[in-house]
Amino acid sequence: MKPLQDYLVVDFSQFLSGPSASLRLADLGARVIKIEKPGTGDICRTLYTSDLIMNGESSVFHTINRNKESFAIDFKQPEELAKLKKLLAKADVVLHNFRPGVMERVGLSYEDVKAINPQVVYGEISGFGANGTLKAMPGQDLLLQSLTALTWLNGNDGDGPVPMGLSIVDMLAGAHLAQGILAALYRKVMHQTGALVQVSMLESAFDFQFETITTFYNDGGELPQRSKSNNANAYLGAPYGIYETKNGYLALAMGEIPVLANLLACDALQAYPENRFELRNEIKEVLAKHLKTQDTAYWLNILEPADIWCSDVLNYEQLFAQEGFKVLDFVQEVQMQDGYRYKTTRCPIKIDGESFIADKGSPKLGQDNEKIIKEFID
Amino acid sequence: MKPLQDYLVVDFSQFLSGPSASLRLADLGARVIKIEKPGTGDICRTLYTSDLIMNGESSVFHTINRNKESFAIDFKQPEELAKLKKLLAKADVVLHNFRPGVMERVGLSYEDVKAINPQVVYGEISGFGANGTLKAMPGQDLLLQSLTALTWLNGNDGDGPVPMGLSIVDMLAGAHLAQGILAALYRKVMHQTGALVQVSMLESAFDFQFETITTFYNDGGELPQRSKSNNANAYLGAPYGIYETKNGYLALAMGEIPVLANLLACDALQAYPENRFELRNEIKEVLAKHLKTQDTAYWLNILEPADIWCSDVLNYEQLFAQEGFKVLDFVQEVQMQDGYRYKTTRCPIKIDGESFIADKGSPKLGQDNEKIIKEFID
Repeated sequence: MKPLQDYLVVDFSQFLSGPSASLRLADLGARVIKIEKPGTGDICRTLYTSDLIMNGESSVFHTINRNKESFAIDFKQPEELAKLKKLLAKADVVLHNFRPGVMERVGLSYEDVKAINPQVVYGEISGFGANGTLKAMPGQDLLLQSLTALTWLNGNDGDGPVPMGLSIVDMLAGAHLAQGILAALYRKVMHQTGALVQVSMLESAFDFQFETITTFYNDGGELPQRSKSNNANAYLGAPYGIYETKNGYLALAMGEIPVLANLLACDALQAYPENRFELRNEIKEVLAKHLKTQDTAYWLNILEPADIWCSDVLNYEQLFAQEGFKVLDFVQEVQMQDGYRYKTTRCPIKIDGESFIADKGSPKLGQDNEKIIKEFID
Repeated sequence: MKPLQDYLVVDFSQFLSGPSASLRLADLGARVIKIEKPGTGDICRTLYTSDLIMNGESSVFHTINRNKESFAIDFKQPEELAKLKKLLAKADVVLHNFRPGVMERVGLSYEDVKAINPQVVYGEISGFGANGTLKAMPGQDLLLQSLTALTWLNGNDGDGPVPMGLSIVDMLAGAHLAQGILAALYRKVMHQTGALVQVSMLESAFDFQFETITTFYNDGGELPQRSKSNNANAYLGAPYGIYETKNGYLALAMGEIPVLANLLACDALQAYPENRFELRNEIKEVLAKHLKTQDTAYWLNILEPADIWCSDVLNYEQLFAQEGFKVLDFVQEVQMQDGYRYKTTRCPIKIDGESFIADKGSPKLGQDNEKIIKEFID
């Protein structure tokens, strides 16, 4: 039995952060009704990535909104708002990711919804919280990475800021909102009380840096310093990094330098019997030069049997050809109401040995209006 | 009232992924008892980052293990195992991140714990799941990034693989485990049933790439292609990226090219009335050259009032000096049992307008043995 079976989520959110939270709730068994503006719907429907349009809409939209229903309603019209409130009165969870003030202006703040649904769990994701000088800025992933210093942790010293090439802050904020909602849901059953659950992308980006921020605050305010080459963590010593080999790349996580020197038959490394942090640039340079002399497989065949933490560096083609990937069955096929089928990922959580699978693809705008009106409003 | 008040978590996990999940449960109000090996404890205690040792132990350990108790017990000894089982019989949640087979061998598998605690929620994080050719590999963050193709999404075309400079896979797996445990906890109250909740770092890394994997599978198997310069997302067109200015950097997320051409007074950009994805290298090159001619503040003063999604690129010093950061009160001070105080981050989730704060720092190895034995075992 899925944990959130018979559980109703009404989701006003758009783009990535909020919808990724409701996707997780849908994975866990909840019924998710996506509220959309008639005509255009979630802006993400037309936010094209790489020109890839699937069945008329963006691949991103299909990825994040599978297993949801769509209810198109113009709730800025008072009579439509009154209808929508009948649905909201039945919801276990309501969530949105509008900028602070938007839901208040349309009469759908936590207080408004609580008035018709006293035990509702009301979740919201903002970019920067409701206070402070940043609150009016757009809560966009790249801007959040840039403002929260994340970009100074990737790449090498001298590279300038290097962003992470995925919407990391959106996804973390979504994950945190899902956690908060699930915790509030448990409290609701135990104590018959609703909740306002709030997450900001700004705080989610800080939480992601809990190690480095704590180190910064207790290390006399020294800025993180990436290594000159082969950096993979500004605070870790050699060999931590990815190295070029004769035919590809090798990731090396940990390992005593003298042990590596012997295994790799690298005489120049013998000069570093102690793995002092401040020598990491030199050590990495020696290692980088030496590892280029042989193929990746050659090095792995020596290092793996010696229990050195190392691996090949794969791309999607190489990865998806691996038996260790195929056995996971991580890619599922889902179907839209009009019969269009596409492949996408599934939920990464298993309960009692079972993956959460649902055959339902993303909804066409407003496809479930009739059913929802009949069930909740008429 | 914290949602997980009066809720007991017994945590066998080490390093980062598992302990980050139990930290979140502690934030939400649970009592977390960390089970450690006498003598050495969690290996993370001595996993030094950047030589920063705080009160005798690593800054990473202090960050991830605040607000927990420590029970040092050698449960490989049968009489000690028997004692430990008295504690496990009272636990709401048991969690670990050992490699597959380890908990089975010591007699603490889900089945073993369920036999003495039928409704237990038992969580586990593995590197690669229990099946497949990869299952014996160490579940280490950099290796997971390297094996799951994450490294080909950062940096520019031609850079080779660029890892993310934080333990992203550990943190996502921890976030997913916390979600699964919270959902199982809700199901337990509703349906009086325990659960085995499983997450692997491998699947968490795939879930993180749900957009790019879905695009890959529906785009004829084209590998993601980073732009030649200023890349911030392999699938997004120009201007998406970070650009050097005369005195710093500027992040630019979205914006129609002709609109940008006018605002920035960049004649060369006028040659691109349509923002075609395949022209992004050219467009970025023109933009990069032009943006170097003025300071960051100059560009922001033009772009922000026009509602273009852009921002400055800050480092920790600049960030922590911002009023928008200070107002969050995101850095809290906690105290260890011996009086040592340190600054660290707090939970990013707010419920009913309140942040979760707890004054309790990380535990010294075995500091709570006496209390725990008295309360649960004697």
